[in-house]
Amino acid sequence: MRTVRLTVQYAGTAYCGWQVQPGRPTIQGTIEAALARVVPEPSPRLHGAGRTDAGVHARAQVAHFETILDLPADRLQAALNHFLPWDVRVLQAVDAPSGFHARSSALSKEYRYRVYRGEVVPPEVYAYTLLVRGRLDAEAMRTAAAAFVGTHDFAALRCAGSRARTTVRTVLRSEWLDDGAELVYRIEADGFLYKMVRTIVGSLIEVGRHRRPAASIAELLRSRDRNQAGRVVPAKGLHLWTVNYAVFGEDATRP
Amino acid sequence: MRTVRLTVQYAGTAYCGWQVQPGRPTIQGTIEAALARVVPEPSPRLHGAGRTDAGVHARAQVAHFETILDLPADRLQAALNHFLPWDVRVLQAVDAPSGFHARSSALSKEYRYRVYRGEVVPPEVYAYTLLVRGRLDAEAMRTAAAAFVGTHDFAALRCAGSRARTTVRTVLRSEWLDDGAELVYRIEADGFLYKMVRTIVGSLIEVGRHRRPAASIAELLRSRDRNQAGRVVPAKGLHLWTVNYAVFGEDATRP
Repeated sequence: MRTVRLTVQYAGTAYCGWQVQPGRPTIQGTIEAALARVVPEPSPRLHGAGRTDAGVHARAQVAHFETILDLPADRLQAALNHFLPWDVRVLQAVDAPSGFHARSSALSKEYRYRVYRGEVVPPEVYAYTLLVRGRLDAEAMRTAAAAFVGTHDFAALRCAGSRARTTVRTVLRSEWLDDGAELVYRIEADGFLYKMVRTIVGSLIEVGRHRRPAASIAELLRSRDRNQAGRVVPAKGLHLWTVNYAVFGEDATRP
Repeated sequence: MRTVRLTVQYAGTAYCGWQVQPGRPTIQGTIEAALARVVPEPSPRLHGAGRTDAGVHARAQVAHFETILDLPADRLQAALNHFLPWDVRVLQAVDAPSGFHARSSALSKEYRYRVYRGEVVPPEVYAYTLLVRGRLDAEAMRTAAAAFVGTHDFAALRCAGSRARTTVRTVLRSEWLDDGAELVYRIEADGFLYKMVRTIVGSLIEVGRHRRPAASIAELLRSRDRNQAGRVVPAKGLHLWTVNYAVFGEDATRP
């Protein structure tokens, strides 16, 4: 048995998220359908590093499957892309060491959330960024973002529906990048709770609008009360950016 | 009567081109429908600088209309964007001098055609660029592109269906820009024939693939024979980039 690791990029717009749901278009289901055309029976199950929600995009999701098929990995990549739609692309396929698991081998994941500052969003980026009109205090947003770094109980910053055993997570990086017309929130953590990034971004935008003081984040975390947090921002601005592994090396698409 | 000049950006993917056609979605028809909701009867006719074909995008198309409505131009812009779909955006609305005409006042127009080099197109740019697999000799494409500069008869480089009186046009700029993963063809001319840019790009890609010598472009122009030219490339890579005016100043969205 051979383990193949895929790096996958997708536009989540037309999908009900990563995880297979009967009768609904999902990323996992779409890739498994392409796998079934390339790999002989029994067609393999695909395991993703993170279950992105409906409408969330991925720049470099990682997934793996096991197969007995003896086809070079680059040929496998080309064959999968042949059967996949344009909005799901395999960027890389490589043989992984036995025991590699896209989810449990991952040390951390990075998400980014794109905020478009201005009055008019260019059509080309409409599906990938959230328009926020009016002034945003980027300095206050940066100060507030830094308060999420460290090991905290994120109970106040997730949505119901999460089946996680604990709400404690370690955030390794939480910052805003200035990318011209866009402010991009970058967060790296050992794990994420249901809608955690979108709740954090909603809270940080309230800071940027001076509806919440930057210094209130520590208090928000301590409260463990979801009602204290900001509104969940739409899925379309959220991108699973990278998945980081130790022994298996960094994601090859990393710049 | 007041003349209002609009700068419009659009994704052409879902439209049958600029010009109104009964029962089919067009950019002009979409903007005129929004105008009809903002401006009182009789709702104005919109005049565009260039009639982009089905599937062609615009970064900064220019259009004008006349109205008696006494609403500040920036309010007009916001109202139009409110009624327009996400894929058609008014970037600017300004009062133009009496006598301004988006098409006949234009001195030149610039188009760009995006070519994606590689094996896999990122979903985010799929609708805006053409994937060209395999090696492309960019130097040969640059040499060949330069041969289009000047006043020439472009009869060999347009498609039937053109109702132009003459096929002579003056090309002010014809070059390839290197934009990382993309090669971008940039052409500025006093006017364009039907599918002229897409026929030129098809011919230049053949040069890049060494299926046609770079030096053959002068001969191609002299032949005046459409059968000598390359295949028309798809609409999705083509962008109306800017429209240039003299007395009325340059397009304000120009970098």
